[in-house]
Amino acid sequence: MASFLRTASRTLPATRRFSAQTPSIATIALQRRHASSAAANGSQPFFPDEPVEPIVKTQIPGPQSKAAIEKLEKVFDTRSLNMIADYGRSYGNYIADPDGNVLLDVYAQIASIPVGYNNPTLQLAATSPEMASAIINRPALGNFPQHDWADILETGILSVAPKGLDQVFTGQSGSDANELAYKAAFMWKRQQQRGGANVDFSDHEITSAMNNQSPGAPELSILSFKSAFHGRLFGSLSTTRSKPIHKLDIPAFDWPQAPFPALKYPLEDFAAENAAEEQRCLDETERLIKEWHAPPTAVVVEPIQSEGGDNHASASFFRGLRTLTKKHNILFIVDEVQTGVGATGQFWAHEHWNLESPPDMVTFSKKAQTAGYYYGNNDLRPNKPYRQFNTWMGDPARAILFRAIIQEIKRLDLVRHTAATGSYLYDGLARLAEKYPGEIMNLRGKGQGTFIAWDSGRRDEVLKKAKAVGVNIGGSGERAVRLRPMLVFQKHHADLLLERLERIFGS
Amino acid sequence: MASFLRTASRTLPATRRFSAQTPSIATIALQRRHASSAAANGSQPFFPDEPVEPIVKTQIPGPQSKAAIEKLEKVFDTRSLNMIADYGRSYGNYIADPDGNVLLDVYAQIASIPVGYNNPTLQLAATSPEMASAIINRPALGNFPQHDWADILETGILSVAPKGLDQVFTGQSGSDANELAYKAAFMWKRQQQRGGANVDFSDHEITSAMNNQSPGAPELSILSFKSAFHGRLFGSLSTTRSKPIHKLDIPAFDWPQAPFPALKYPLEDFAAENAAEEQRCLDETERLIKEWHAPPTAVVVEPIQSEGGDNHASASFFRGLRTLTKKHNILFIVDEVQTGVGATGQFWAHEHWNLESPPDMVTFSKKAQTAGYYYGNNDLRPNKPYRQFNTWMGDPARAILFRAIIQEIKRLDLVRHTAATGSYLYDGLARLAEKYPGEIMNLRGKGQGTFIAWDSGRRDEVLKKAKAVGVNIGGSGERAVRLRPMLVFQKHHADLLLERLERIFGS
Repeated sequence: MASFLRTASRTLPATRRFSAQTPSIATIALQRRHASSAAANGSQPFFPDEPVEPIVKTQIPGPQSKAAIEKLEKVFDTRSLNMIADYGRSYGNYIADPDGNVLLDVYAQIASIPVGYNNPTLQLAATSPEMASAIINRPALGNFPQHDWADILETGILSVAPKGLDQVFTGQSGSDANELAYKAAFMWKRQQQRGGANVDFSDHEITSAMNNQSPGAPELSILSFKSAFHGRLFGSLSTTRSKPIHKLDIPAFDWPQAPFPALKYPLEDFAAENAAEEQRCLDETERLIKEWHAPPTAVVVEPIQSEGGDNHASASFFRGLRTLTKKHNILFIVDEVQTGVGATGQFWAHEHWNLESPPDMVTFSKKAQTAGYYYGNNDLRPNKPYRQFNTWMGDPARAILFRAIIQEIKRLDLVRHTAATGSYLYDGLARLAEKYPGEIMNLRGKGQGTFIAWDSGRRDEVLKKAKAVGVNIGGSGERAVRLRPMLVFQKHHADLLLERLERIFGS
Repeated sequence: MASFLRTASRTLPATRRFSAQTPSIATIALQRRHASSAAANGSQPFFPDEPVEPIVKTQIPGPQSKAAIEKLEKVFDTRSLNMIADYGRSYGNYIADPDGNVLLDVYAQIASIPVGYNNPTLQLAATSPEMASAIINRPALGNFPQHDWADILETGILSVAPKGLDQVFTGQSGSDANELAYKAAFMWKRQQQRGGANVDFSDHEITSAMNNQSPGAPELSILSFKSAFHGRLFGSLSTTRSKPIHKLDIPAFDWPQAPFPALKYPLEDFAAENAAEEQRCLDETERLIKEWHAPPTAVVVEPIQSEGGDNHASASFFRGLRTLTKKHNILFIVDEVQTGVGATGQFWAHEHWNLESPPDMVTFSKKAQTAGYYYGNNDLRPNKPYRQFNTWMGDPARAILFRAIIQEIKRLDLVRHTAATGSYLYDGLARLAEKYPGEIMNLRGKGQGTFIAWDSGRRDEVLKKAKAVGVNIGGSGERAVRLRPMLVFQKHHADLLLERLERIFGS
């Protein structure tokens, strides 16, 4: 069976080609074959109906895209727009646009598409009566959860809970998840300071809280790291230190930032120097924990700093943070919003660290298509109800989708697969880096699945040229090219990516 | 045709009765008749298949509910749980539980269900190929919007934009919507202070922003009102002043709160006194705008303070706020998260005010089933991209659902209908208040659709007894009973509610 995308582009009349209303698209989409589990063990494609290579028909944006952008600009800020997409025609690892261009997508909605566009297994979940009910009967989960909410959690979100964590508080975005975790940390610490769950709030606390003053609104903090990204709401933005454009003009809490290790590559050539750098950062973290005027109640860290430029640190550094937080009786929050759900070759990136005791909280979003934080300690449940609460507290529709994603990941063995594909891709990139040392600098992500990046002296130009040769790639930080393919990215996609990169580097 | 709910509960074997897996439920649900538009003009029910009255079979929670709660408690905090719901069996104005109880729901997921549980029109939207694509191909909207995003906005969210506002920034919850609006306000004010959109950030601003210090992270504020509720994220919580339990132990910005008018009821008996009270609040608001150490860049206000106890103020008060904010060159943000989408008898509650110029921003969520803020002034678009940005920036699936909700509201003329039903209900409650003066105090919401509340000396007991007589009602503030029926609430539901209230008051 030929690729639907190629067939359709040849046979549909041009005027009907990209209308969302064309019934044949939906009909054909439903006939797509489910991703093949046989592929997990060999070189067969997961998506037999996927295009065999990118199709570039026009400059991007082409005329149809330009018309759509012009229309959209009147009502919606389009200055951050990268590409107008036609999701009805996107499939597997390929993203389509209204001009008939179909690109290999290794950015995947900023690392948020887990198992391919229009994955037929997810389509089944999305068209189930259970999903329809979740869409139209959205509950206030804290007050009126559905009778099968425990089942949905246990067979979905909690079935992949990090080791040692068995409870979840659901939310709506990565920022939201982090702020919920921060709130849990503040309540936990103040409860300790008061003398336990049974000690009630004082009148002074109650009065001062209503006036946004200490002690009710305490002068405590969350410690984060230089170049970190934890979101853009007011609390999470106070822990974000990635780029000025994220923070300028927005009031912030006076919370501390520790240095994040600036490692030198290749790691094996700078082992001693890098270890010293990590120790310096741990020492400064400890100093801030002990001395900052608003004492930290938690340290929050990304396993790999993503928006900040794909900055890595060793497992030993993170074990050091776990030790420090235990020593000073504060919490260790691991922000797995971008690293979670398989892309690093483990389901959660912090599994690479072999921690002696689990993180206190792990936040998630993006590929999970829902959000929240895991925890395992009952003391992280506030002493009274309605302290950690909001109307929606997540979205059962998205929790049901995540369950289907988890099932697809397990069925196709995608975490193990991603570890292997990542290794293959990394080796290919290492060869390219030798051949084009000016193009690929500080290649990083070895042993971290497909979570791979490098620095480029002409990053924005590379990203732009990538589109012209049929690949959608993203950047991070000031000069990093970051790869964030989906979990269904395979060796033949890696070959294609390497070949297109070489075309760019040679041009 | 008999009610499905009653038929099903009679004929299905008990063991299969409440399983979400029972295929017959979904099948029968799809056969439900669409809400009848004939009902808008008379006493015909919108939902011919709705139960004719509540069914109370067990104490609430009953044995099945208790088992579900016990199971859920292990993984999810259930202390704020009000009632376990079976949404597959809920329909129209009625919410069902796993024990076969079916209650008239005038709380509606904290004012968030607009057109009835399992509304067949929404079910069509929820099972469309367009919705399936939106669920499984969730885009990073700011980077990769779908080609028909402008259409979805224009035929949906923007088709009900408040007068004078023609752009939207989409978000994920009411809290999120407010924080996005606050960020827009801070960026707008700092741009003015810098001298316009073309004046670049200074090095000092850039450096200080990265350290969470002024001037990059400016010492500016948002002014809110005593008893206000604007959300629970760190910025929005700093403007929330409803209850200590919402705020205790969470760090907050030192932002100002103005007094909100404490009106005396019945309004007509205290006209002069109430006018003086409102003037006092306006004067104090102006003083804070002029004198607060962190100058307010915006005033945020709910048209009716909801969580804070259903506190009303006159149109004149809100016109006064519009005047003050214009006078002092700051923004006027109207938080319509709870009041928006028809329940007050206008699509937006601030339409009751006859403002000379529109609010600068209007935030929405809840009944819209999506979230965001409307604005009309191009200066509220930040001077550069990526300043107001996040990965998801809303959810097209929820935007598509809101479009279907809007279509249903228009088809059934539900805003006009709600104004009329609200008037009928208010008159009935006024009669009850005369008969039971100890039970209904400070009745409020006249002319505000079904957005009605009163104070009760035994509020929590009334809410509990309401369940026993088949009605799900919510509270707000310390002693208010708040009614938040759906827009499909009709006179026969009002009669039923009044009759059940009288049973409670007589007991």
